[in-house]
Amino acid sequence: MSENPFQTEPFPGSRKIYVKGELHNIEVAMREIHLSDTSDSKGKIFKNEPVTVYDTSGPYSDPEKTIDISHGLEKIREKWIVDRNDTQILPELSSEYGRSRMNDPDIDRIRFQNVVLNPRRAAKNSEITQLYYARQGIITPEMEYVAIRENQKIDAVWESEMNNGNPVNQAVTKTHITPEFVRSEIAAGRAIIPANINHPETEPMIIGRNFLVKINANIGNSPLSSGINEEVEKAVLAFRWGSDTIMDLSTGKNIHETREWIIRNSPVPVGTVPIYQALEKVKGKVEDLSWDIFKDTLIEQAEQGVDYFTIHAGLLWKHIPLTTKRVTGIVSRGGSIMAKWCLLHHRESFLYEHFSEICEILKAYDVGVSLGDGLRPGCIADANDEAQFAELRTLGELTRIAWEHNVQVMIEGPGHVPLQKIKENMDLQLEHCFEAPFYTLGPLVSDIAPGYDHITSALGGTLIAWHGTAMLCYVTPKEHLGLPNREDVKTGVITFKLAAHAADIAKGHPGALVRDNAMSKARFEFRWKDQFQLSLDPETAMKYHDATLPDEGSKSSHFCSMCGEHFCSMKSTRELRELTLQLEDKSNQFKEAGGEIYVK
Amino acid sequence: MSENPFQTEPFPGSRKIYVKGELHNIEVAMREIHLSDTSDSKGKIFKNEPVTVYDTSGPYSDPEKTIDISHGLEKIREKWIVDRNDTQILPELSSEYGRSRMNDPDIDRIRFQNVVLNPRRAAKNSEITQLYYARQGIITPEMEYVAIRENQKIDAVWESEMNNGNPVNQAVTKTHITPEFVRSEIAAGRAIIPANINHPETEPMIIGRNFLVKINANIGNSPLSSGINEEVEKAVLAFRWGSDTIMDLSTGKNIHETREWIIRNSPVPVGTVPIYQALEKVKGKVEDLSWDIFKDTLIEQAEQGVDYFTIHAGLLWKHIPLTTKRVTGIVSRGGSIMAKWCLLHHRESFLYEHFSEICEILKAYDVGVSLGDGLRPGCIADANDEAQFAELRTLGELTRIAWEHNVQVMIEGPGHVPLQKIKENMDLQLEHCFEAPFYTLGPLVSDIAPGYDHITSALGGTLIAWHGTAMLCYVTPKEHLGLPNREDVKTGVITFKLAAHAADIAKGHPGALVRDNAMSKARFEFRWKDQFQLSLDPETAMKYHDATLPDEGSKSSHFCSMCGEHFCSMKSTRELRELTLQLEDKSNQFKEAGGEIYVK
Repeated sequence: MSENPFQTEPFPGSRKIYVKGELHNIEVAMREIHLSDTSDSKGKIFKNEPVTVYDTSGPYSDPEKTIDISHGLEKIREKWIVDRNDTQILPELSSEYGRSRMNDPDIDRIRFQNVVLNPRRAAKNSEITQLYYARQGIITPEMEYVAIRENQKIDAVWESEMNNGNPVNQAVTKTHITPEFVRSEIAAGRAIIPANINHPETEPMIIGRNFLVKINANIGNSPLSSGINEEVEKAVLAFRWGSDTIMDLSTGKNIHETREWIIRNSPVPVGTVPIYQALEKVKGKVEDLSWDIFKDTLIEQAEQGVDYFTIHAGLLWKHIPLTTKRVTGIVSRGGSIMAKWCLLHHRESFLYEHFSEICEILKAYDVGVSLGDGLRPGCIADANDEAQFAELRTLGELTRIAWEHNVQVMIEGPGHVPLQKIKENMDLQLEHCFEAPFYTLGPLVSDIAPGYDHITSALGGTLIAWHGTAMLCYVTPKEHLGLPNREDVKTGVITFKLAAHAADIAKGHPGALVRDNAMSKARFEFRWKDQFQLSLDPETAMKYHDATLPDEGSKSSHFCSMCGEHFCSMKSTRELRELTLQLEDKSNQFKEAGGEIYVK
Repeated sequence: MSENPFQTEPFPGSRKIYVKGELHNIEVAMREIHLSDTSDSKGKIFKNEPVTVYDTSGPYSDPEKTIDISHGLEKIREKWIVDRNDTQILPELSSEYGRSRMNDPDIDRIRFQNVVLNPRRAAKNSEITQLYYARQGIITPEMEYVAIRENQKIDAVWESEMNNGNPVNQAVTKTHITPEFVRSEIAAGRAIIPANINHPETEPMIIGRNFLVKINANIGNSPLSSGINEEVEKAVLAFRWGSDTIMDLSTGKNIHETREWIIRNSPVPVGTVPIYQALEKVKGKVEDLSWDIFKDTLIEQAEQGVDYFTIHAGLLWKHIPLTTKRVTGIVSRGGSIMAKWCLLHHRESFLYEHFSEICEILKAYDVGVSLGDGLRPGCIADANDEAQFAELRTLGELTRIAWEHNVQVMIEGPGHVPLQKIKENMDLQLEHCFEAPFYTLGPLVSDIAPGYDHITSALGGTLIAWHGTAMLCYVTPKEHLGLPNREDVKTGVITFKLAAHAADIAKGHPGALVRDNAMSKARFEFRWKDQFQLSLDPETAMKYHDATLPDEGSKSSHFCSMCGEHFCSMKSTRELRELTLQLEDKSNQFKEAGGEIYVK
């Protein structure tokens, strides 16, 4: 894997830019899409300002950077972490399992070469989480980074609009998202920056309902499918197309090594569900799971650099009987594992009982906790039932405990919920979990569309994001049917990027409409290349256009194959506008002469 | 085209059934999906009732019927129409253009062989529309047909549930949709049955917000693409996958003949936009359009059997200046044609001025009118503006005129609207148009996803359908880029079937959940084949599953490649349920002995 088999060319018509910080020495990566000029009917030329967009692709889309998967990405946060002077470098891995994998020569052939042997953890008596800093009133480089990133240079757009006689972006306002606003949202628990000190390769991003809606892509092999290469390729695809975080949900072979490859090459935060690997360690025997094995797994993964852990600590022993009348029982993998453990051992969940100790581990690395919804409904019939909401109330209880330890928290949400029951989920989550960010799967608003469940879940996802969900977990077309391949990953990411964007518009995020407006103007002016470049997926847009009109001339023609020349309404309206202007001239003359327009 | 190149095999595991009427001698087509048995852990067998679903595929999915495209479909409504004894058979086509096409030998090679030479129209002094009958208190066979059809045998499901100790469909109620309810909704103008007396091949269907949400698929060639064969193939695909009506929007060659092939082979109502053909007749010169040419086109198409016409009669001369500040002006093709006509002729729209005469033509054939939204917004920036709502108020005015003539009316709605502005559209439509059914395109909730606009529009479509839209116009992945091909038509239809279904669930349509519940039970019981058969698109669901686990054994295995065996939550929950039952037994013994369960 020392070669670079990934799609790393820049996006068409775009260049990578880096915006400097004011408080800190930081450079915030963005993508600038360049547009061609507009010429009016008299041949006068108007310049179209470039559109700056949020960019999750990291160095992969920057031709100035060399990508070497076997080496891993540049550690852009390392200096920030070192400068805080509150962490120590460990002499060796703290996890027993981590050490055993490292010392196993059989694994050498698949091992990441540049592996981290001396991870960091908090220095003695030091608090190091972003939540801790925020509560202290400290604006970290991570906080300034996300403030700049969220704004996508909207203030420059605003100023340019103010100096423009014919503004397109009339709804644009100056931003309210300052570094201090970011800090205050984190301090309030309403937002998190997942940023493990052992994952200094991340470009900081924020998850909270007063920011852009984020999306997550799940990757990872299963025992039946895929290997390390393919999973790293999926990850790079996910970054390129807009995934704000990825979760490595591997349950197959070499979970530890797969994760190392992924983290070292990931510019976005990486989440995992540690119970999966813990179960693999006991060869799939749920009864053999224990707090000790789980604890060692947490440390192992925290020292690799996992940025957030999904932990199903809210599923209590007493909740299980609430699921017996359900049509599909417990559909969360982590949830079903823990329920089985409780029943087999006839005792309370060790995740719940040891939750404070879990927080002690997490805070030493600034790993966020994503409280898993082990009892999420797996079908419309089971939505919003007592099992689901009983667990949600427990998640609220755990949120408070995590916050006591300065651990950043988000809450996972329901899978299958019909439209009319979605808002209740959001409302209760905010209430019971004190406005901690909601991170939802779907919701899927129907059960009958396998093969199209990326759409089924985007339908519900868009709605719940508008109501306040901070991050949407993507669903691919393979959901319920099999492990997604590369193409499925791309489709899932673009679909959810669209869902998140629709919610950003509805929520009035400053600047959310700038790209839409630029697209609409390009459409009206038949600037086809600009339309492709402004698209969420330029290559598909161009491919579809070229399916019927492939020649270069059609890229500037005033119609497409959908309607043809006579029936192109955009073409017709442009002609019409000229006519209207003439008419307005006439009517003004008429009015000035004392007459009335539009007499019948 | 005498061969049958279409996909006409029955759906997997399904058979076509025909439910008899009680008031009339009618047979209502439906699809019955058969399910395999459930066996519990002790090997006891439980039968799963078949699931009856709404079926728009007509005879194409019935192996008992012979499909001969060159002959056309059986005219199932002919006897009903004859029995009403209020129509006359015309000695020849009334339209001059229709006659000229019929007598042109150059067209023989593409002409439909079994063409209708003697169409029907209302007998002198007779009123023949479904709205007229409804207002008279008459329940027509069409009305009884749709009442039975809407219910999908839900009362049988309800009875079977009542006799079942462990019901899956706990939310199922008896239906309220009776033939009399259908009549009353039509009489109130809240619903329409598009059913031209010259299209007796249709299986009646109803469009109204107190019924299942319907979808329409646009087909038709453009001057740059496609021919008759391909358009008929697209139509048959649309029927198969669930399109409730189709619109033939041809603007290319041989519009008249293409339409004849489509109508004679369509079991669903066919809509058109007559101004398109009128414009072709004047070779694309808008200035040459006239009331006479338009009128002849209406008659020509009405006598071929078009069931509803989109007419942009609400776009007034005075509305045009309201669009000059828009980012994308006028994006409706019909709207831009009429706006141009008004400006060129410096006078009011002939569609508006002649609207009563239009209604006189429509009522003679029972053609419904779909009042076009010529000023719908073409981008987010233009949504909900004064141009749009001014036209909407005029559509309300026209609704009253149509109703005075007993003409069935629906109202077309907006293209691009962000999420937060969707509800206002629905509310104002109901208010200004007196609850006439709303028929919407999209709304598309963003502008930046060309290539994915079937999804962008389904996001808004689902929401507006939940709020009360009666029919959604599909959008395909090629929207804004080119003419859809066969694959795009299928993707568009399935996507909108899903959107409509999600809204049906949210609105609580009786029985909407039966198929979802059957799917969920099949999922929990690993009946893979039943899952495929219950899917909106069985072939895609099976293909995706088989991509990783193609062997026959995997169709009954208790996991799939997504999670593998150890991590399958459904498998795990089934084991868990056994454990829980044992536990409940124990705890009951414990309670009976005076103890408490779940002490910590």
